[in-house]
Amino acid sequence: MKLKLLQSYLRKEKIEVVFLTHYDTNLNYFTKFKPSYGFLRINTKNAALYLTSLDGNPKIENIVVKKLDLNWVNKLKNSKIKRIGINKSQINVDFFEKLKKIYPKAKFVDIAEKLAKLRVIKDQIEINNIRQACKITDNAFNELLKSISKLKTESEVASFLESRMKEKGAELAFPVTVASGKNSAIPHHPTSNKKLGKGFLLLDFGAKYNGYCADMSRMLYLGKPSSEELKWYNSLLEIQEEAIKKISENKLFCELDEFVRKSLGMNSSYFIHSLGHGVGLDIHEAPRIAPGSKEKVLKNCVFTIEPGVYFPGKFGLRIEDTVLFDGKVKVLTKSSKELKIIKVR
Amino acid sequence: MKLKLLQSYLRKEKIEVVFLTHYDTNLNYFTKFKPSYGFLRINTKNAALYLTSLDGNPKIENIVVKKLDLNWVNKLKNSKIKRIGINKSQINVDFFEKLKKIYPKAKFVDIAEKLAKLRVIKDQIEINNIRQACKITDNAFNELLKSISKLKTESEVASFLESRMKEKGAELAFPVTVASGKNSAIPHHPTSNKKLGKGFLLLDFGAKYNGYCADMSRMLYLGKPSSEELKWYNSLLEIQEEAIKKISENKLFCELDEFVRKSLGMNSSYFIHSLGHGVGLDIHEAPRIAPGSKEKVLKNCVFTIEPGVYFPGKFGLRIEDTVLFDGKVKVLTKSSKELKIIKVR
Repeated sequence: MKLKLLQSYLRKEKIEVVFLTHYDTNLNYFTKFKPSYGFLRINTKNAALYLTSLDGNPKIENIVVKKLDLNWVNKLKNSKIKRIGINKSQINVDFFEKLKKIYPKAKFVDIAEKLAKLRVIKDQIEINNIRQACKITDNAFNELLKSISKLKTESEVASFLESRMKEKGAELAFPVTVASGKNSAIPHHPTSNKKLGKGFLLLDFGAKYNGYCADMSRMLYLGKPSSEELKWYNSLLEIQEEAIKKISENKLFCELDEFVRKSLGMNSSYFIHSLGHGVGLDIHEAPRIAPGSKEKVLKNCVFTIEPGVYFPGKFGLRIEDTVLFDGKVKVLTKSSKELKIIKVR
Repeated sequence: MKLKLLQSYLRKEKIEVVFLTHYDTNLNYFTKFKPSYGFLRINTKNAALYLTSLDGNPKIENIVVKKLDLNWVNKLKNSKIKRIGINKSQINVDFFEKLKKIYPKAKFVDIAEKLAKLRVIKDQIEINNIRQACKITDNAFNELLKSISKLKTESEVASFLESRMKEKGAELAFPVTVASGKNSAIPHHPTSNKKLGKGFLLLDFGAKYNGYCADMSRMLYLGKPSSEELKWYNSLLEIQEEAIKKISENKLFCELDEFVRKSLGMNSSYFIHSLGHGVGLDIHEAPRIAPGSKEKVLKNCVFTIEPGVYFPGKFGLRIEDTVLFDGKVKVLTKSSKELKIIKVR
């Protein structure tokens, strides 16, 4: 189905063949396969995956699997082909020079944007995988709440979340971020061996299930928050929930971003990243959810809504959900967003 | 020092400037830095790392750190430069096209091989990091031997090894391979949820410490091995140890490989991969240790010696060490290679 959508685009654009490399997530998207070396060749009517090894005798629907001949550059040679699609950001110069030898008269067209657009709309299998990834993420968070008082450092918290996700058959969508106290003011603080201290604890993590990602951020508070801290948390949460309510078909993503910045008012200068991003095989993929984005909310797209404020040297807050729009707005990460206050001795 | 070696090569080859991308391990090699986006520009006399974000104010010896201007293609424009070095296997077409705009009259020279050769010779800091990675790997193996009888599946064994390495401050050099029974006949079997059964258990794993890798394979046996199985194990071990003894300065790596194939005699057809590979920042790097390799044992190179035999549908064996040659041969992975026989109920 995905392959057919691409092929009809190729016919329209008079692109005769597309090459995708083994290090390009798009190969994985069309083949459900992640070879350590090889490439996918897509014609307007068929497709072949070339692999150096046929170990395990892989079978892929609608795609022929072929052994990569050492002499493949000469074997594929074709001087008639005129237009070839490639993903310029995922094809190295080595491989590109081989393609130029095979197709000496061809023009190479960058189809990166088209591939990104195709992937925005998820099918039911993809949605189920993301749902499951979100469920595993929620489960890890709930388990953490039961054990947090036994954990002493940022990296112990990260390991705990990691183990809970892995034992449910998931991988990590990205390295777990655990940022305690002042560290939370750095949006992507690398988890350290810092002892958990009083103050906010920012958690940003997600499982990857069958290749598909979840992405969630939650805040805990160790000790007793000041009324100012509580006020900050609650107003950010209100804005995050309002932004989610504003999602509707064909709404421009930049309008959602703008709504959040306006709601933050004078404090919007502390919101130093974009409101969100698409989620799928890659943790960051289309659509772009930021000022100036021209993309719209479409049926069956999955993305994050994650406003944040960061006060250098003090603390930072981010609240993030993975959201599906399938005609209705569905928040897939269901962990409670009430600020969890953890007693400390 | 590393940078100076490259720069003297550049002067000799009349290469005026080199560009390395953020996804190229060689950037990490020269800068000890792993940016999420950016590139390294090396001239014959100086070097600059261009980053989109200067968060954390990075300082690197002998390298200027600059903020990447959005308009960098126009700012760097230079029509006088004639010869530019790139690593064609680690530079995508997108970035390459930008370089061609900056240097419209230049010839682009692939320096991938030169970079690989530079990295073959490790300095003392690199060797210490690899030593430590091997030590952490050994420690995880020894801990496993104490706990193996409590573990039930391949993936539980993998998680156990992973946790023991991570709690010592290491990352994984690559995903842990645990292959039980018939699975061991597949050289890089993806660790599964299969229950551990009677027969051989192949473990291939390694820690990564400060970016530097260790690589080790060991065999356990669950239950009571047959005399044929024992004979196979012991002869492979003898061959592996003989091969290590044959390492000496300037010996061709292909001779070591040939020695192993000859020693296996008629059974060499079951040895279906190369004898080893260099180890460093990448788990697989130069030298190539395989038939036809023209590389020689040089002082301060680090590599694996890993003969194996694989009998499809029956079992497979591999014994692998990470070895340093610093004038003398030093096996850095010190875990016992005596076949560990584990009682099963």
